[in-house]
Amino acid sequence: MDHGDGTALLTDQYELTMLQAALRSGTADRRAVFEVFARSLPAGRRYGVVAGTGRLLDAIEAFCFEPAQLEFLAANDIVDEPTLQWLEKYRFTGNVHGYAEGDCFFPESPILVVEGTFGEAVLLETLALSILNHDCAIASAASRMVQAAQDRPLIEMGSRRTHERAAVAAARAAYIAGFATTSNLEAGRLYGVPTAGTSAHSFTLLHDSERHAFEAQLASLGADTTLLVDTYDVERAVGTGVELAGPALGGVRLDSGDLGALARRVREQLDALGAAGTRIVVTGDLDEYGIAALAAAPVDGYGVGTSLVTGSGAPTTSLVYKLVARADGPGEDAPVRPVAKRSPGKPSRGGRKTAVRRLDGHGVAHAEAIFLGEAAPGPRDRVLHVPLVRDGEVVGREPLTASRERHARAVAELPASAVRLSRGEPAVPTEFVGDGTRP
Amino acid sequence: MDHGDGTALLTDQYELTMLQAALRSGTADRRAVFEVFARSLPAGRRYGVVAGTGRLLDAIEAFCFEPAQLEFLAANDIVDEPTLQWLEKYRFTGNVHGYAEGDCFFPESPILVVEGTFGEAVLLETLALSILNHDCAIASAASRMVQAAQDRPLIEMGSRRTHERAAVAAARAAYIAGFATTSNLEAGRLYGVPTAGTSAHSFTLLHDSERHAFEAQLASLGADTTLLVDTYDVERAVGTGVELAGPALGGVRLDSGDLGALARRVREQLDALGAAGTRIVVTGDLDEYGIAALAAAPVDGYGVGTSLVTGSGAPTTSLVYKLVARADGPGEDAPVRPVAKRSPGKPSRGGRKTAVRRLDGHGVAHAEAIFLGEAAPGPRDRVLHVPLVRDGEVVGREPLTASRERHARAVAELPASAVRLSRGEPAVPTEFVGDGTRP
Repeated sequence: MDHGDGTALLTDQYELTMLQAALRSGTADRRAVFEVFARSLPAGRRYGVVAGTGRLLDAIEAFCFEPAQLEFLAANDIVDEPTLQWLEKYRFTGNVHGYAEGDCFFPESPILVVEGTFGEAVLLETLALSILNHDCAIASAASRMVQAAQDRPLIEMGSRRTHERAAVAAARAAYIAGFATTSNLEAGRLYGVPTAGTSAHSFTLLHDSERHAFEAQLASLGADTTLLVDTYDVERAVGTGVELAGPALGGVRLDSGDLGALARRVREQLDALGAAGTRIVVTGDLDEYGIAALAAAPVDGYGVGTSLVTGSGAPTTSLVYKLVARADGPGEDAPVRPVAKRSPGKPSRGGRKTAVRRLDGHGVAHAEAIFLGEAAPGPRDRVLHVPLVRDGEVVGREPLTASRERHARAVAELPASAVRLSRGEPAVPTEFVGDGTRP
Repeated sequence: MDHGDGTALLTDQYELTMLQAALRSGTADRRAVFEVFARSLPAGRRYGVVAGTGRLLDAIEAFCFEPAQLEFLAANDIVDEPTLQWLEKYRFTGNVHGYAEGDCFFPESPILVVEGTFGEAVLLETLALSILNHDCAIASAASRMVQAAQDRPLIEMGSRRTHERAAVAAARAAYIAGFATTSNLEAGRLYGVPTAGTSAHSFTLLHDSERHAFEAQLASLGADTTLLVDTYDVERAVGTGVELAGPALGGVRLDSGDLGALARRVREQLDALGAAGTRIVVTGDLDEYGIAALAAAPVDGYGVGTSLVTGSGAPTTSLVYKLVARADGPGEDAPVRPVAKRSPGKPSRGGRKTAVRRLDGHGVAHAEAIFLGEAAPGPRDRVLHVPLVRDGEVVGREPLTASRERHARAVAELPASAVRLSRGEPAVPTEFVGDGTRP
């Protein structure tokens, strides 16, 4: 079955029917500005994390309508012939600015600004939101886990709990947020995320005894491997592991039970056996709270699965893609003016925006300032938008490690309260600057 | 960037390191039986829905290690040379049985049974779980929404709230569970799910007035289209819509506010204008409870987004893939015996299982009976396993409409309490039959 690289049909039908109607009414080529933002963070969260930007840039490059896709649209009468002809030639030729990947965001932060004609920019709505809503949700949860783990490494191992391709994106997002490794091999191949993993319970059960299984694993993967010790009896398994591998045994993994108490007992046992360097890795339904609760336990690393890939209670972000300004007529020179709907409970602010993070004299953030119109950054303001696409060319690609380093800096810049796990307000308030009467 | 069709690296690293160690210890070719099941349903849910089977069959067919994937594994020293050679020739040659797609499941239901050598069957663990855990979560939530909506049609429109490829699978799963249509075009192209969609607020804002926007939409999409009427003032928009389209106006969509009260006012207005046939579609943060609350409102259809693609509070299923039996030695004739781990809180039952749904004289289900060993179905038992893969060949493919029809029948067969939205116990109890001493 053809799953292909094409991204153009990862799109809601109404983007294409709107295009068709706008082509007919002569408004499709009005210049337009769309903005991606969230009205709020998930309840109690103190900051969000921008992730998915790099994937979005790949997806925009791959966004073109191939014959099989056009045939589908034609055969199902989804759009008319003039629209099919327009789509056949479609490439995004506009500009995209946005928060750099790994940076933090807050309510109303304009994390992406897409400028082009209405027709070319509206088509990107669904895909941009899918990628950013998913990846930001994962990175935002992952960042809290990284903070909770302090300096201990985190392994992302949630692939089996989410859609098979979402798993790859989740591993990437977790790495940006500071996870050390992933179990997901495709994330290693596609994005260079370091991979990890040794064995599961089935490997122990496959062998005639746990001893045979450990012998097999050690013979093949070396003494530095991590043995899973909770298939039958943890104490006996740890004893067997050290007996077979000696004090060079790399690690043991605990996947069930009271992980804190168990880790303490295993640490004592390992130390008594002379295996003071053998690491203890814990896995099994951990989230940021479970990780924090193990801060005083002798744990050397955490594996996190379900809670990571489901955003730890917030499996999506509430990012929207809104038209905030558009021209009154066709062409480059037609004046562009702010627009906003007035739906009850969902008001929006018109106009193209820029944003800065306001820092105090110690470099600590104290506000997210969003400029409407022509306000200018002050000397201690950190400008948040970077160019991502210019005249249709991707200009904002960067190594994943750059996003990862940016994230560490962005969190360090926030007030100390930002990294508390308890429910709270956004770590900094959002302020609007300027009157928004100019686009 | 190469995203390709290959599915072999959508896999946790430990599947490959276990394979390597088992190849070396001579246990990789022991015959093995793996079982997919959930220890429990999400809290309060009364049944689960099997979905993803058809996608899994596609993914198993595509599961082979291509040069780019082998190069990645070699370059990163993930497995050794003998393992790479084994992987290069890998195709799954075993058997898979499982619950047919669309059927219901309960705690411990053996929804998939994979038989092969340990080496070939263990490699499918991550991919099988990713697909089933995701798709079952979506279908299980979707089924509750379909029950809540009674005979009113549901539109799946959550693509923007989940990973861009997960969105396609979610649309497919929702259709199996009884949704009428999806906004996702790729789900239409790949799986034949009917698609729907007309316009968003941005289309209204693009035009110089709402009237211009409606004129443009009606001119292009015809009077039978659905107009979005809450950009500025609903009453005025409904009036304009009927004025322009006449009583043939297909529908109006409400996306904000108190949907029940608004629908009643709009229905009165439409009727007074002679547009008694114009449908009212409501969207905006609906879940199964929101849908049920609108049962008495004059609503003709619901659009559901976020809550559908996030499983309405249960974004994943807790399906696991456990080794339940394996041979004592290599070859076809070595005796296969049950195995089970004894981890605290996560016990498992060894042995290959089959299952039936026990029906009473009225055809109503009263138990999920799981056979260990050689128990046989009774005359009113509905056998739940169907062959899916035989000797490596996919034999269980079926049209999506067949899964959809099966789901409707499977829910109708459950006791009436099954479709209550309130939290409750599983609709039928799970019973084990037989002693499990024989594989």
